[in-house]
This record gives sequence, C-alpha cells and structure tokens, in this order.
Amino acid sequence: MEAYRVIQVKQSVFADNNARADQLRRELKEKGIFLVNLMSSPGAGKTTLLTRLIEILGRDLKIGVMEADIDSDVDAGTIARTGAKVIQLHTGGMCHLDADMTWQGLKQLEPEGLDLVILENVGNLVCPAEFDTGACLNMMILSVPEGHDKPLKYPLIFQVCQGMVVNKIDVLPYFDFDMEQVTQFARMRNPELTIVPVSAKTGEGVPALADWLKQKIQHWKESGARRQEND
Amino acid sequence: MEAYRVIQVKQSVFADNNARADQLRRELKEKGIFLVNLMSSPGAGKTTLLTRLIEILGRDLKIGVMEADIDSDVDAGTIARTGAKVIQLHTGGMCHLDADMTWQGLKQLEPEGLDLVILENVGNLVCPAEFDTGACLNMMILSVPEGHDKPLKYPLIFQVCQGMVVNKIDVLPYFDFDMEQVTQFARMRNPELTIVPVSAKTGEGVPALADWLKQKIQHWKESGARRQEND
Repeated sequence: MEAYRVIQVKQSVFADNNARADQLRRELKEKGIFLVNLMSSPGAGKTTLLTRLIEILGRDLKIGVMEADIDSDVDAGTIARTGAKVIQLHTGGMCHLDADMTWQGLKQLEPEGLDLVILENVGNLVCPAEFDTGACLNMMILSVPEGHDKPLKYPLIFQVCQGMVVNKIDVLPYFDFDMEQVTQFARMRNPELTIVPVSAKTGEGVPALADWLKQKIQHWKESGARRQEND
Repeated sequence: MEAYRVIQVKQSVFADNNARADQLRRELKEKGIFLVNLMSSPGAGKTTLLTRLIEILGRDLKIGVMEADIDSDVDAGTIARTGAKVIQLHTGGMCHLDADMTWQGLKQLEPEGLDLVILENVGNLVCPAEFDTGACLNMMILSVPEGHDKPLKYPLIFQVCQGMVVNKIDVLPYFDFDMEQVTQFARMRNPELTIVPVSAKTGEGVPALADWLKQKIQHWKESGARRQEND
C-alpha cells in the first residue's frame, strides 16, 4: 500500500486570489476543518516540528498534512511514518502556494472527517507571505541559526502570521542569537504576534505550542457556533 | 560622511531579461569588472562570509558590494565597516533581482576602477535562481543547519551556480548534516559544481574559497585577452 501520493498543483487561473481564499475558508468552516499555513525559510525545521506536533495533537484530533515542495517527496515520507494522512504537492517550480493551489491539494487529500490540516508551504520567507492560501491561521518558524535580524529584512511574513515559532533553541549556545532582540524586532512588525520558543529536535516547548494551537482551534469552533446561533 | 547609500531599485521594464543580462556582462567585460551573484536562504551567512572574503581578496583587488534586501540596511552597515565600497539596494518587496535591477544598482555604486563587485541577492533559494542578473559567476551558500537534503527540494539554484559554499561547518557536531550526502545530492543536480566547506565565523576554509575566486577572475580576464588578440 502506498503511504502517500504526489500530486502536481497548477498555477491558479483565478484572478482574485483573496476572493478564492475567502471562499475556501468558508468551505472549511462548513466542514469543521481547521487549516494551518506553516511557512519558514528552507531548513528551519517545518517537517520535524510537524512530526512532534502530530505526536501531541494526534491524541485528540484527526490530522492531515499537505507537504509542498518544488521537487522531492522526502517530507511526505517523514510525515507518513507518523500515521497522519499526508499528500505531497509539487509546485512545478512555483515559490509559493496560492488559495487555488491549496484547494487543489485539499481535494486530493480528501480531508472529510479531519479536524486539522496543516499545509507546509514552500521554504521561502518572501513569496508565501504575499498569497492568502485560505488558511484559518498563518504560522511561521524562525530558526536560531538564521539570526535575530530577520524581522528587519523580511517584514511581511511577520505581519501576516499570528504565531511565530523560534525553533532550534537547543543550539542557542552556539549562535549569536538574542531572544529579546528577536521579540522586539518581530513585535515591531506585528504587536499581536504570539512567540513560542521550541526545539523540534528535543521536543522542548512543543507542548506549549500544541496548547496554543488547540486554543486557536477551539476559539474558531466556538466563533462558528456563536455565528450559527445568531443566524 | 555617510558610509553608504540606500537606493530603491525598480522592477524591470525589459521584457527579455536574458538579453539585458548579456548586455550587462558585455559592459562589465569592457570595464574589467568581475560581478559575482551570491545567493542563499535567509540567514545562511552571506554577509559574514563577505566580510571574511573582503579581508583576504581586498589585499589584491578593489572590491565593491551591493547588498539587496526587501527592507533594512543592517548588511550595508556591516560591509561598510570593512572599508569596501558598498550600497544597499531595496527591492520594494521583490523576492529577487533581475539584470536591470542589478544594472540600476551598479549605476549608483559607480564601480569604475573596481576589480570585483559582489551582489548579495535577496535571501531566497527559489526565485533568485530563475533570473540571470548579468553576473560573471553565480555562487550560493548552503549552511549546515539547513540540512543536506536541500538539493533535492530546490533543484534550480544548484544548477545555475558554479560554486557552492557549505557554511557554518563549526556547528557540524550539533546537526545531522552529512557532507558526503550533500555533495552527492548537489552533484546530481550539477556535476560541475565546485563545493567549498567554510566557517565564516571562524574563518576556516575561507582562504581556499578566496583562491578559487581569484582563479575564476584570472581565467575570465585571460579569456578576454585571448578574444581581443583574435579580433
């Protein structure tokens, strides 16, 4: 039995990505599926963090993962071993996913019955931040070796995310990375940003991140219930 | 006295970027200026490596640097302290530089009399690889914390570069990074790729990289001389 499929997503034919994203969010709401768009530089630790998160969140939630890459399927293979439902998306050279590409991926994942789907976007701090994927939550990873000056250089991604994970804190002693500075720089871009330091390698901090995500999902579900009551 | 200027480069009006790039290369050849396009993920160590390279290459060559970023001028400030001629380019949100943006930057740098100009491209493993900047040499950095699987996921950048620097080898003991694997994966993409392991932090390996660059510049100069003899 194959553990996962690889599908090629095609560049959107929709002129208005924002409208397509809103439409997708409405569809997800109706189905009760919470979609997280996870972004970072290449090699910041998205896939390793996901395996840790699935370990914890998988106790209460049915989880699906869409792994987007320009090429290769190493990440889908890693996620498949956690037992989560997973699909590998190839972007055909594209540096980001838009809402319609995300929709194409979801259709192939067949997410009915899942509580949470995590989209691992293409490793890139620039372009993915420019396109609303239709996700309910944008989350990013900044890893310690990348340096604490990144909010100064790549403003938009810090602005569009609700959560920022500072990953690889296990190697803090070997890098000139200042946690206070990065907090200050990131909050300059986005005062509402939740910042969670973790080591996906050792697991440190991941339970706190899982709790935060569970709260976000709960709040999203309740806001829907309230809206239905008002209808 | 200001140490450097910040200029805003504008998206190209040239339909044919490749033609514009060839034109720029011809102009650089006439002026005897060797242009290097340095690419990597965010935080791979481009600026730190440049300060080390300038220390060595600056003994024999007059060097200029163009620091491209979406925002901030922290990198230009760092390079200015080396004494090299430097300019900060802001891309206005653009995720890469094309040949005309590079040309706009060079015009502001006023490179006449320089032997070597290094363009530090926007931190991004995807988009910069798709645009010929008009450089005489493409060089990339892959840093140890990013992982050895990157040539599998981001094929194009490994194909368009002549040199790949593996940076941050000082932290090899703390990461699961396999130098043999990365060499194999990178050569799968580009059999001709020169791979140089360095630590920009400690300086290890940088003299070998400087030697390789000097050879490339020498070869480029001689090929020009030969062509002139034949004219």
